[in-house]
Amino acid sequence: MRPSGRDLSEMRSVSIETGITKHAEGSCLIRIGDTHVLCTATIEDRVPPFIKGSGLGWVTAEYGMLPRATHSRMRRESAAGKQGGRTVEIQRLIGRSLRAGVDRVALGERQITVDCDVIQADGGTRCASITGGWVALRLAVNKLLKTGSIQSDPLPDPVAAISCGIYAGQPVLDLDYPEDSEAGVDGNFVMTGSGRLIEVQMSAEGATFSRAQMDNLMGLAEQGVAQLAEIQKSVTNV
Amino acid sequence: MRPSGRDLSEMRSVSIETGITKHAEGSCLIRIGDTHVLCTATIEDRVPPFIKGSGLGWVTAEYGMLPRATHSRMRRESAAGKQGGRTVEIQRLIGRSLRAGVDRVALGERQITVDCDVIQADGGTRCASITGGWVALRLAVNKLLKTGSIQSDPLPDPVAAISCGIYAGQPVLDLDYPEDSEAGVDGNFVMTGSGRLIEVQMSAEGATFSRAQMDNLMGLAEQGVAQLAEIQKSVTNV
Amino acid sequence: MRPSGRDLSEMRSVSIETGITKHAEGSCLIRIGDTHVLCTATIEDRVPPFIKGSGLGWVTAEYGMLPRATHSRMRRESAAGKQGGRTVEIQRLIGRSLRAGVDRVALGERQITVDCDVIQADGGTRCASITGGWVALRLAVNKLLKTGSIQSDPLPDPVAAISCGIYAGQPVLDLDYPEDSEAGVDGNFVMTGSGRLIEVQMSAEGATFSRAQMDNLMGLAEQGVAQLAEIQKSVTNV
Amino acid sequence: MRPSGRDLSEMRSVSIETGITKHAEGSCLIRIGDTHVLCTATIEDRVPPFIKGSGLGWVTAEYGMLPRATHSRMRRESAAGKQGGRTVEIQRLIGRSLRAGVDRVALGERQITVDCDVIQADGGTRCASITGGWVALRLAVNKLLKTGSIQSDPLPDPVAAISCGIYAGQPVLDLDYPEDSEAGVDGNFVMTGSGRLIEVQMSAEGATFSRAQMDNLMGLAEQGVAQLAEIQKSVTNV
Amino acid sequence: MRPSGRDLSEMRSVSIETGITKHAEGSCLIRIGDTHVLCTATIEDRVPPFIKGSGLGWVTAEYGMLPRATHSRMRRESAAGKQGGRTVEIQRLIGRSLRAGVDRVALGERQITVDCDVIQADGGTRCASITGGWVALRLAVNKLLKTGSIQSDPLPDPVAAISCGIYAGQPVLDLDYPEDSEAGVDGNFVMTGSGRLIEVQMSAEGATFSRAQMDNLMGLAEQGVAQLAEIQKSVTNV
Amino acid sequence: MRPSGRDLSEMRSVSIETGITKHAEGSCLIRIGDTHVLCTATIEDRVPPFIKGSGLGWVTAEYGMLPRATHSRMRRESAAGKQGGRTVEIQRLIGRSLRAGVDRVALGERQITVDCDVIQADGGTRCASITGGWVALRLAVNKLLKTGSIQSDPLPDPVAAISCGIYAGQPVLDLDYPEDSEAGVDGNFVMTGSGRLIEVQMSAEGATFSRAQMDNLMGLAEQGVAQLAEIQKSVTNV
Repeated sequence: MRPSGRDLSEMRSVSIETGITKHAEGSCLIRIGDTHVLCTATIEDRVPPFIKGSGLGWVTAEYGMLPRATHSRMRRESAAGKQGGRTVEIQRLIGRSLRAGVDRVALGERQITVDCDVIQADGGTRCASITGGWVALRLAVNKLLKTGSIQSDPLPDPVAAISCGIYAGQPVLDLDYPEDSEAGVDGNFVMTGSGRLIEVQMSAEGATFSRAQMDNLMGLAEQGVAQLAEIQKSVTNV
Repeated sequence: MRPSGRDLSEMRSVSIETGITKHAEGSCLIRIGDTHVLCTATIEDRVPPFIKGSGLGWVTAEYGMLPRATHSRMRRESAAGKQGGRTVEIQRLIGRSLRAGVDRVALGERQITVDCDVIQADGGTRCASITGGWVALRLAVNKLLKTGSIQSDPLPDPVAAISCGIYAGQPVLDLDYPEDSEAGVDGNFVMTGSGRLIEVQMSAEGATFSRAQMDNLMGLAEQGVAQLAEIQKSVTNV
Repeated sequence: MRPSGRDLSEMRSVSIETGITKHAEGSCLIRIGDTHVLCTATIEDRVPPFIKGSGLGWVTAEYGMLPRATHSRMRRESAAGKQGGRTVEIQRLIGRSLRAGVDRVALGERQITVDCDVIQADGGTRCASITGGWVALRLAVNKLLKTGSIQSDPLPDPVAAISCGIYAGQPVLDLDYPEDSEAGVDGNFVMTGSGRLIEVQMSAEGATFSRAQMDNLMGLAEQGVAQLAEIQKSVTNV
Repeated sequence: MRPSGRDLSEMRSVSIETGITKHAEGSCLIRIGDTHVLCTATIEDRVPPFIKGSGLGWVTAEYGMLPRATHSRMRRESAAGKQGGRTVEIQRLIGRSLRAGVDRVALGERQITVDCDVIQADGGTRCASITGGWVALRLAVNKLLKTGSIQSDPLPDPVAAISCGIYAGQPVLDLDYPEDSEAGVDGNFVMTGSGRLIEVQMSAEGATFSRAQMDNLMGLAEQGVAQLAEIQKSVTNV
Repeated sequence: MRPSGRDLSEMRSVSIETGITKHAEGSCLIRIGDTHVLCTATIEDRVPPFIKGSGLGWVTAEYGMLPRATHSRMRRESAAGKQGGRTVEIQRLIGRSLRAGVDRVALGERQITVDCDVIQADGGTRCASITGGWVALRLAVNKLLKTGSIQSDPLPDPVAAISCGIYAGQPVLDLDYPEDSEAGVDGNFVMTGSGRLIEVQMSAEGATFSRAQMDNLMGLAEQGVAQLAEIQKSVTNV
Repeated sequence: MRPSGRDLSEMRSVSIETGITKHAEGSCLIRIGDTHVLCTATIEDRVPPFIKGSGLGWVTAEYGMLPRATHSRMRRESAAGKQGGRTVEIQRLIGRSLRAGVDRVALGERQITVDCDVIQADGGTRCASITGGWVALRLAVNKLLKTGSIQSDPLPDPVAAISCGIYAGQPVLDLDYPEDSEAGVDGNFVMTGSGRLIEVQMSAEGATFSRAQMDNLMGLAEQGVAQLAEIQKSVTNV
């Protein structure tokens, strides 16, 4: 029934290749099916003005798409002179999600910026960015731990995200682009590896939905995130 | 326990004054406690390029805050040269939410723009904007029905929104600013008058949350939206 | 002869409601006929760089219109990415006018920003902004006097503004929108309550004018400002 | 008493050199003392959308300053990414002033853009721009008349402008920069060669002023504009 | 003597991986040492306004760097609100260079946009972009030939580019970042596979240079481009 | 054979008028045929952040065109909200070229900004800007030497630039606009008065070129720059 032939609760194949660029403190290329996102983490000693002197750390994120990551070419945001509304919304979500999984006292007064750049898009880029972004963040933090810059681990539990939706009347896990563009309800779920919720975003796209449907999607998401967290752990040796 | 002395499931007082400006096709001033938002609906015969010729209508929204709607003055976005990320995120939410409650075939090929401008802010401005925005939209559509421009009603059911959150460890309905700035979990729930879900957005702010907590907040939200929908109906005579 | 049926030297009805928002140090909603402007005054301890350390105060103003303050909806300036030429011109006029009525030594090294946001426009918004802006400023200064932050009153005399013009060949006071869009000559007069001139701006719109016509308009303006100053005094208890 | 040693009613020396660039339909370099402005007029067949098909012509103006036209270098507005408030205000004034002296029916449905670029500034650049801008406009219109593109002259009377102000307590004509920066009252007067008023702008700078003072400045301005109009006529052979 | 231990006329290792994204009509990942650039070619049926109806084709290019392609993170240009001067200069060079190698009559009235995005930078990104960009262009054109959209090949000869410079007093081929930042003279040479010149750009960086030195660099560049052209041909099967 | 009737190696007439504005530390109006550029040099005590405290000086340049410097009017870049790609590319070239001829130790920790504004364009504006810009720079430095602010001359040798190209199959010196728009190859050569190379930029415009052709153009350029350097010296009394 799904265009890809997947079962309702079947994720696309996932691969996370780490150490993808030589400059960044942490980096990976995450591939969830045909959605490919390059994630890098940059450590800087400065923090935003509103927490200067607090001793607390900060994690923020930026998101972008290469112009031809999509079916037809999109205008480059730098040429347009501003980031679009969708970009802004997504990068705020990535930043909030990663931050929620960080012990900011343990991180100490430094900032880590996670850049998520979509090389190829086929649905679910924001979730892939969060999942891959956490891996880049984990690798950068590992360096801080190894050099003794920080003593206790500020990343107690992985943070991962997956989309679910109602496609052709059925709850499905991990929507690809053909499903996403047809889905009546679309949700993004950010959770920790141990199943705690960080962010839930569900939207009716054409049709409203019931609490029962919402519960179904939540259940699927829990399965998906658990699988992703295992992969995150395996590639970061945690 | 709440700074305002309200019960956990008690909303702030709500008033919706309609017909607030003489130019707009629909308008209201919604007051939810000390949060005051001016909402206007503008009908235009043009639609966005991507639906031209489809016969379908479109509803979109813009959101702004007057510079001194808040405790300390904020820089005017027009002077800053762009809308901030928070503004963009909120106005996309308002637009999506209102659109989900519209029968776009019945509306016909025209656009209604709902402007929500916050006169005074005390928490919950995005929810007040959706609730008040629907009233402005309803009034504008009433004009179209009255003049016979459209035949069947494209607004079958009110759309309203309310925030809930976990404050001092307790689930509470309709957070005001002092609660919002301290809440560990913050959610916005957009629903129809008959209780169908349109948009659910929950964020951990400092602490992750469980499905049980999420269910508690959902329950509170359902009560709140039902009350708001009654007020919406009464002021628009539906 | 006038569309509104008013006499040539008859102003529209004026009301000024103070204390309109809870956050601002001074605020009012001024209604001159169907022109409604919300004015707030914000006190800040910083001053612009060019007077830092001088001991002198500063008063500045910003002006905006809600998108549907006008007959047809105007594009939001924050979305357009800049303030239009008309906006810039008007807010510079408001700032200069209010500043001319301030004893900047008595004010002391602090800045007061007056925001004038047009809720509904029907001609004369810049004059209403100056008149209402002074009321907001007066109320903010009253607070500084009451708390002893300043000792001597930096606002010796009200500042108010009124438009006059030549409509259908006749000099008329306080043009509303239907008159304004047809007037051959259009002037804005800013004066103190005791009749001293602060700013005179007269423009030929289609037809040039003579000194005699100019003198007529000046005379009307003096009457108008005197009435406005009385209202300003009464609502600020000076 | 004046820094330059001029009499109270004495203008600076004025020269207008025409035909200054080979591309523009009309051009001149106007020198009023040490204020030098290059003015060009460009004829285009298109008009702004709001008068398309009306048969009426349009005249508009733009104003700029070279970065080192002033004592200390100013940031280039193209590098800053926007025109400053002062620039916008001035170019709107130039456009309105020139337009008021044009018979737009006689001009026919075409647009003339007058560019005024300040090469060297020493006070009074907006007035020099209007006076020089009219010369460029006149020369461009002469071409249209010569080629028979238009039949009747749309420029019945020169338009010129001069500043006056109260300096050291005395009314003076044509303020230079040292006077302008000290003046208590500053006015710009745009008139036709036959003495009709087009635009009057008077501002209190530090001190309010009386109607008697205003009348004095008006009288000086009338003398100044009459002299400028003679020069305009002589260099354009009218 | 070179930091990398390479001979004076030795290029870094080059690899070009084609078919790197599924959406673009042509794509490759070019690696020249540690400089990695992702190049995509997009075919569109529209052309720029100035050649509409001419029957001629157009090739243009855009260039970007991911924020952490460099040693320290650079600000995202979309967030800064504009493309920097270096970016603009480079993308204009890429576009001109590729266009010079295209038979625009044979291409027909269509546009191909080549996007070059630097994943990792280690000197020579603009040359790698031209070399890789031509491969993406070649692959896109191959598709047009295969489908019969165009009949004769508009790409007679490869276009490739290489940098040369004077490092530590010696002429060297293909500068990497450590050399580039120390070089006294820096040149970029764009040529065809058969050795015709397309673009020569040489800059003194600290020290001027002689014609003899220039000739030395030209000779090195000819060797380098010939090698690159062979690789380009082998990966595109020409 | 050339539209102007000049010999292949004949430059247009050159004049450089110095002391053109009273405010700038150095200034000139350079006229190369019908290309007229106003150049000013501004001395400031601050330097860019990346050389603060180094004791080194900095020279930078900005370039602009008046809107009607060209055949048809171009949009003002300040109104467009950004500098175009061509502007950015040219001003970077001017800055690099002038800087290459400066002994930055001798200049001391100060910045000189050279502004080049094209009053009238007829081809070769970037070369005229470099040649005229050096004269403005020389005059400003002369002031620093005269006042003893610097002891040893940081400008050992003039810097000048000329264009050459292949027009109608022949190598020609100093292209004017009619030639430039038809040339198959276009080159800009920046050299010192003693013939050392600073910047070479050659571009194929429609046809590729050979090394022999390149050598021919280099030879022409050497002659042209030598003539320009003599004029530069004569007008700056070096």
